[in-house]
Amino acid sequence: MFKRYLPIMGWLSVYNRRTLAGDMIAAIIVTIMLIPQSLAYAMLAGLPPEIGLYASILPLLAYTLFGTSRTLSVGPVAVISLMTAAAVGNLALEGSSEYIAAAIALAFISGIMLMLMGFLKLGLLANFLSHPVISGFITASGLLIAASQLQHLLGISASGHNLLDMLLAIAANIQHTNLITLTIGGSAVLFLFWSRKGLTPLLTHCGLTAHGAALVSKTAPVLAVISTILIVWAGELTESGVRVVGAIPAGLPSFTLPSFDSELWQQLLVSAVFISLVGFVESVSVAQTLAAKRRQRIEPNQELIGLGAANIGSALCGGFPVTGGFSRSVVNFDAGAQTPAAGAFTALGIALAALFLTPLMFYLPQATLAATIIVAVLSLIDLGALKRTWQYSRSDFSAMLVTIVLTLVQGVEVGIIAGVSLSLLLFLYRTSKPHSAVVGRVPGSEHFRNIDRHQVETNSRLITLRIDESLYFANARHLEDRIYALIVEQPQVKHLVLMCPAVNLIDASALESLEAINHRLHDSGVTFHLSEVKGPVMDRLQKSHFLEQLTGQVFLSQFDAWQALNDEKVRRKA
Amino acid sequence: MFKRYLPIMGWLSVYNRRTLAGDMIAAIIVTIMLIPQSLAYAMLAGLPPEIGLYASILPLLAYTLFGTSRTLSVGPVAVISLMTAAAVGNLALEGSSEYIAAAIALAFISGIMLMLMGFLKLGLLANFLSHPVISGFITASGLLIAASQLQHLLGISASGHNLLDMLLAIAANIQHTNLITLTIGGSAVLFLFWSRKGLTPLLTHCGLTAHGAALVSKTAPVLAVISTILIVWAGELTESGVRVVGAIPAGLPSFTLPSFDSELWQQLLVSAVFISLVGFVESVSVAQTLAAKRRQRIEPNQELIGLGAANIGSALCGGFPVTGGFSRSVVNFDAGAQTPAAGAFTALGIALAALFLTPLMFYLPQATLAATIIVAVLSLIDLGALKRTWQYSRSDFSAMLVTIVLTLVQGVEVGIIAGVSLSLLLFLYRTSKPHSAVVGRVPGSEHFRNIDRHQVETNSRLITLRIDESLYFANARHLEDRIYALIVEQPQVKHLVLMCPAVNLIDASALESLEAINHRLHDSGVTFHLSEVKGPVMDRLQKSHFLEQLTGQVFLSQFDAWQALNDEKVRRKA
Repeated sequence: MFKRYLPIMGWLSVYNRRTLAGDMIAAIIVTIMLIPQSLAYAMLAGLPPEIGLYASILPLLAYTLFGTSRTLSVGPVAVISLMTAAAVGNLALEGSSEYIAAAIALAFISGIMLMLMGFLKLGLLANFLSHPVISGFITASGLLIAASQLQHLLGISASGHNLLDMLLAIAANIQHTNLITLTIGGSAVLFLFWSRKGLTPLLTHCGLTAHGAALVSKTAPVLAVISTILIVWAGELTESGVRVVGAIPAGLPSFTLPSFDSELWQQLLVSAVFISLVGFVESVSVAQTLAAKRRQRIEPNQELIGLGAANIGSALCGGFPVTGGFSRSVVNFDAGAQTPAAGAFTALGIALAALFLTPLMFYLPQATLAATIIVAVLSLIDLGALKRTWQYSRSDFSAMLVTIVLTLVQGVEVGIIAGVSLSLLLFLYRTSKPHSAVVGRVPGSEHFRNIDRHQVETNSRLITLRIDESLYFANARHLEDRIYALIVEQPQVKHLVLMCPAVNLIDASALESLEAINHRLHDSGVTFHLSEVKGPVMDRLQKSHFLEQLTGQVFLSQFDAWQALNDEKVRRKA
Repeated sequence: MFKRYLPIMGWLSVYNRRTLAGDMIAAIIVTIMLIPQSLAYAMLAGLPPEIGLYASILPLLAYTLFGTSRTLSVGPVAVISLMTAAAVGNLALEGSSEYIAAAIALAFISGIMLMLMGFLKLGLLANFLSHPVISGFITASGLLIAASQLQHLLGISASGHNLLDMLLAIAANIQHTNLITLTIGGSAVLFLFWSRKGLTPLLTHCGLTAHGAALVSKTAPVLAVISTILIVWAGELTESGVRVVGAIPAGLPSFTLPSFDSELWQQLLVSAVFISLVGFVESVSVAQTLAAKRRQRIEPNQELIGLGAANIGSALCGGFPVTGGFSRSVVNFDAGAQTPAAGAFTALGIALAALFLTPLMFYLPQATLAATIIVAVLSLIDLGALKRTWQYSRSDFSAMLVTIVLTLVQGVEVGIIAGVSLSLLLFLYRTSKPHSAVVGRVPGSEHFRNIDRHQVETNSRLITLRIDESLYFANARHLEDRIYALIVEQPQVKHLVLMCPAVNLIDASALESLEAINHRLHDSGVTFHLSEVKGPVMDRLQKSHFLEQLTGQVFLSQFDAWQALNDEKVRRKA
């Protein structure tokens, strides 16, 4: 029981010096990476920078206790920060104490929701977010985030609720561009882009191993941070209008009780659902990818508890919603993290930063943070997925496109709702006209194939229809239409066999349709049979009165049906 | 082209004296049945009685031109009248001119919607109303309608928006019961119930054929109407407080232009969607049942056009929403109607009634109309369906129960929305954890069966998983979990085969999962194969890059896979 809800008890007992070394090295690298990220994502969420640090301490410790992934790095991430800004921005003015209180409450509600989902084993709720919807949503969020950071890069004020508003606001204010800010921010962007491709070979050239060079190059954002701090400080550029982070209160976060205002909770509820689901889906897919590489196992429902604990932890120390981040987790894994203890060591690193490094960040330009955000999120944007999905499936493509367009135009929540609804409708549409084929016997065999595609034996008094889908409410009436049309076309028919090898479910609507078909075929003088009904489906049919009413038989195999009903013809002819 | 949208051109050319005779007799019986029904359902909808007559003339003519059912009887029906009252009652005071205008606009919007759905071939939208939801909705509506008529039976005023409100209002006013009204209404109820079982044998006894007796007994409501009119007139019972229909304007309806107030349209839009869908589903299922008895065919999308034309026709002469009614259509069929001309003759009959019979209905007691409604709707209530559905499937049962309870408590629209949403969620839930089985070879055969149920051959280096469901977003991650769990349990495994005979669809989410599985199995040193992939599924996979990335092969049959991968083991051992 304890071990089930506290996975830490599984790995702590086998902890040794080797795992400690791996975890320590990984924690140092991730800490260096997380410091600028946590400040940047707090800025993206419209929150003071120190809140980014606060959201990177307790959540990591909580996940270390409750999470099942050995290498997931929990903390502020870009998409969740954007969603936080969207949710809280509707309720309070950015920067106000209500705004901060709402963000904290959002983390708390989201944490409780995740925990509840975990205890109720509702991890499968995340399945409603289909891949095209998630992928489209992440791409659109990436574009929105990048656009929202352009103002910091230009040193102007220009915000908006959707992509068009943002771009128009930028166009209207572009003459106020601060050229020094743009130079700093632009150089940072170029440096960070270059570091992705160019820094690793350079470091290898300087003697580092390929693996080491790749890891060190992940700390490039810190290089950008340090150098731009020095430039702004040395050049006294704040006097030229370069906006900096400014004074960050030093010290550890104090314990915070989230707001329990029921009106606020109601206003945040829907947003919390989406933040929880998106955060969970993102986090679990990273965790599973990494776990598979070491043949480890992720327990999705326990992950919900782990992420829930992390968010409640974040709220209790005044932080905002967090989840497992993709890029940091990959770095943590590559750097050799062996157990969730790496996360605890990272938390320690961030705590030290909060205690001692904040005065050094006074001169950190906002443009540098914007640059790290832009470079990070541009890797999220996957417009190629649109093309691939178009080639594979038009309906998946349309769900993706609608999600992208509505997220950009109407915002994150409308985008997700529309995408999910459309996926559901399209799935029902696709299964509402299932593939079916009239089949005949391949001569001399026990096989039955589509009469339109193969040379097969048929019998004018017998129609066999093979249906290639589970029968349920969305396609039950289609089956009725198909069968009545067949009977009207061929008035000499005496037997109709429904061949069900691909029918995995018959729901109550489909049962009603089968009863109607049976009844109406009877009225038309046609006997109705079934063949190749699967075991679980047959078990369920036996709970209804359908089999008693059925005018014909249920044949184990289509060949049995053919023999019985074909022989009958021969007998009658004789 | 013309013939496609005007089915009348199909049957008018073969019209002859025999079909004319059948249609005429049916029309006379249906007219007699429809006069009290049309008045009663107008009362149920909260409208003046003449509007019931108006809605029974032009709609029938329009359906004669555009409908595909030979025997459907279109006009006011109980459930749609209840839905009209619910929709319009939110917007205006019952009896006000705004109320009437809103009912007319509702018929018009609903007609346009049905026509559009017909032209766009969206008849399948009705599939979202699963059978348990429709059945539960009709039962709950029947209870609501019966409860709403109790006040007229008692001669009191007591209305409410849900079942509880209605019953409480009746309890509060029951001391005002008019005993003469109750006697008239109660006798009518008893007579009408008795006529269903007792009148046919009596008439047969008097020398009518069984068929004739059954038809004549359907005119029992008119007998009740005539006798109670005579009783009230002769006894001057209006002076004792018996409420009567009163003065009905004589004459044909005049042409009415519906309101085009955009605010009104917006308020009625959602109601119009539900009225259209419910009306369509009810109408089409009656039409199909009757058509099958004569091996005729219903074209659902053309039915939408026919019902749309009927509703637009209703609106243009000041009527309210209509659809094909169950009991009248059955009577029409049984009375020998051969073509939709029977509907046109019925329209003529109602027109004559509107011109000449309305003065005779002055003394018609409201209690008699209430009695005809109560007896008619009690046959809609099917509480036995709850038990049958419970036995067959718990999830279908819960959708039905939620629909019934919410319709009774919260009203018709909330009831339908909740039922449809729950059906969708439950369907996704049921397919989100599909049945799957690890299979082995039945010794000496080419068959593969579940290793937990059968004595089969297995190979410790090879796992074959058979999945019994289409792969799509709701179950894609479940498949990933299942496969990773198998691999973690059996570290010696080198090959995993996914056997897909029941997979009818692989959507983009599932494709992504298969790619992730392939990638992660590769990281774990396991080769990933597929077997028995269906043709259309394989066609689609070939449009993606999955088959290029696949570490293993796609085998046509599971036996091929077994031979190839089992041999490999033997070879390596050798």
